[in-house]
Amino acid sequence: MTREKGIQIVLAARPQGKVTPDDFRLEEFALPEPSQGEFLMKVDYLSLDPYMRGRMDDRKSYAEPRRIGEVMPGETISTIIVSNHADYSKGEVVLAHTGWRTHAVSRGEGVRRVAPGALPVTTQLGVLGMPGFTAYAGMKAIGKPVKGETVVVAAASGPVGSLVGQLAKIAGARAVGIAGGSKKCAYLKEELQFDAAADHRSPDFPALLAAACPQGIDVYFENVGGAVWQAVLPLLNRFARVPVSGLVAQYDGGGETEARDRLAATMRQILNQRILVRGFINYDFAKEYYADFLCDVAKWISEGRVKFREDIIDGLENAPQAFIGMLAGKNFGKLLVRVGVQK
Amino acid sequence: MTREKGIQIVLAARPQGKVTPDDFRLEEFALPEPSQGEFLMKVDYLSLDPYMRGRMDDRKSYAEPRRIGEVMPGETISTIIVSNHADYSKGEVVLAHTGWRTHAVSRGEGVRRVAPGALPVTTQLGVLGMPGFTAYAGMKAIGKPVKGETVVVAAASGPVGSLVGQLAKIAGARAVGIAGGSKKCAYLKEELQFDAAADHRSPDFPALLAAACPQGIDVYFENVGGAVWQAVLPLLNRFARVPVSGLVAQYDGGGETEARDRLAATMRQILNQRILVRGFINYDFAKEYYADFLCDVAKWISEGRVKFREDIIDGLENAPQAFIGMLAGKNFGKLLVRVGVQK
Repeated sequence: MTREKGIQIVLAARPQGKVTPDDFRLEEFALPEPSQGEFLMKVDYLSLDPYMRGRMDDRKSYAEPRRIGEVMPGETISTIIVSNHADYSKGEVVLAHTGWRTHAVSRGEGVRRVAPGALPVTTQLGVLGMPGFTAYAGMKAIGKPVKGETVVVAAASGPVGSLVGQLAKIAGARAVGIAGGSKKCAYLKEELQFDAAADHRSPDFPALLAAACPQGIDVYFENVGGAVWQAVLPLLNRFARVPVSGLVAQYDGGGETEARDRLAATMRQILNQRILVRGFINYDFAKEYYADFLCDVAKWISEGRVKFREDIIDGLENAPQAFIGMLAGKNFGKLLVRVGVQK
Repeated sequence: MTREKGIQIVLAARPQGKVTPDDFRLEEFALPEPSQGEFLMKVDYLSLDPYMRGRMDDRKSYAEPRRIGEVMPGETISTIIVSNHADYSKGEVVLAHTGWRTHAVSRGEGVRRVAPGALPVTTQLGVLGMPGFTAYAGMKAIGKPVKGETVVVAAASGPVGSLVGQLAKIAGARAVGIAGGSKKCAYLKEELQFDAAADHRSPDFPALLAAACPQGIDVYFENVGGAVWQAVLPLLNRFARVPVSGLVAQYDGGGETEARDRLAATMRQILNQRILVRGFINYDFAKEYYADFLCDVAKWISEGRVKFREDIIDGLENAPQAFIGMLAGKNFGKLLVRVGVQK
């Protein structure tokens, strides 16, 4: 054990609009002794994901909100350091929902062993983990792009969006990525081989997007909402499909506006163009597609057809600031916290 | 021939908000002589349907808008009175897209013979026609209700809604209808055997609807939009399906409001509850389901499991007023104009 006490980050207050550092509190706790049938884990990597913002609000979502004082939720790569559990041994590396903490005790529920492989263990939280499967399931079950169609995705340099675009290319479709800033847009075209990129920070963004989609949009993978949706809506082709996996622009104090009601225009377009819009959570499709996902994406990575990018910061105490930055689009690639390291 | 001149109703002006009688103009025209390969029809019944409102606006919809001065579009039951066409004879009864007029010449394109049957010929414009197939296709392809689920439909005493509810019952689901006024609500429960009805004119409508759906809503067949959608949204269950076949509350000057933007709440619910929303036009599904539709619904009518109601007015010159009334929910059942009769 590297320290006698663990640290954890709890929800201190419900955000009023945008999240601030004051909405979190860092706490120390004495490392627990695992009882019979339990094991103690040291957390190596914590995944930071947009869905966590929803859990901070006291509003029904697809999961229960956190209570004030509870540890922030999150999936981690952890190493077992003490085991009194018959099926787990010291030194094993696991995926676990420990939340934002350095150590956690478990009875093994919801824990999954990470098989040693050619790829960094962190891919289990990104391209081969929940974000990757979100992209894969949404495209397989709902988006279903075919050769020659145009697929658009926002947050396209992130772990979901980057795979959505690469899956579009593998299906023979055009991939158009939306990202913030010229660096990310260049990455999409040069590294990931997207056909086009549009910078949502540009004042001309709607026109840029239209120019990037001369044949309209057949699949829009929705993970942001807000102004991007307004730019996408008029470009949607007849029979377009819109998997909805996230609404990050609405999460952080960006929901209802005082602007004119935009629902009527959205519904009219859905009807006129016969569009399919469908919300989903990746695990809705685990039974149907999870095994295929692991097999396909690992193969495509090995063939160089799928690339991924990680943005790793050090120190659990820096998680709140990194999370706040992510909601503002400051990360570049899958955001992870290397928990075992202190700055 | 019953008269030397025909009459027709043309689009005189684009409606500014709600349609008014001044947006139409009645014109006389000399009855044309059909050329070789043509036939002349006398129109017996004109179908009045909400989609016609969309064609009056100069806005891209799923069909081209009418031009000012053009005859209002519409499907009719017509009788051939003069034929110079090899395949059609005087006296044959056909379905044709003649528009709002007493007579029309055709070369046979888009014309379909009506086989004599046990049911009134008008059913070809209602329960066994386009409105009936809209209900059938939306439920088969998108709604897919199963035993024990709750299906909600608005405009439920109309030709689409009444069949949606009865199809729900046939599938073993609960049928909840939304209609305007106690007479229509009583009809839904007493005649059509819906499980519950909610009057959208009641000030307590959202609470009435919630009380009528104690297990939430699994299928909402959307044909109105507006305030009804706002009442439905919070009741939608996980994995609910929403076929969108019309938005009549938005058609007649009831689109965007200055109210707070409601799009964010709709998108959030779509994501959280993993809802499927899909726009469709009945003919999108003709290949897959049209033959089954004719067979199934005719059988169910003969067995008394599907009932229908017609609201027939006399005289083409009364079509504008009847159409305006329909947009305000004044019709009770499938609205038709008996064109051959003058008051």
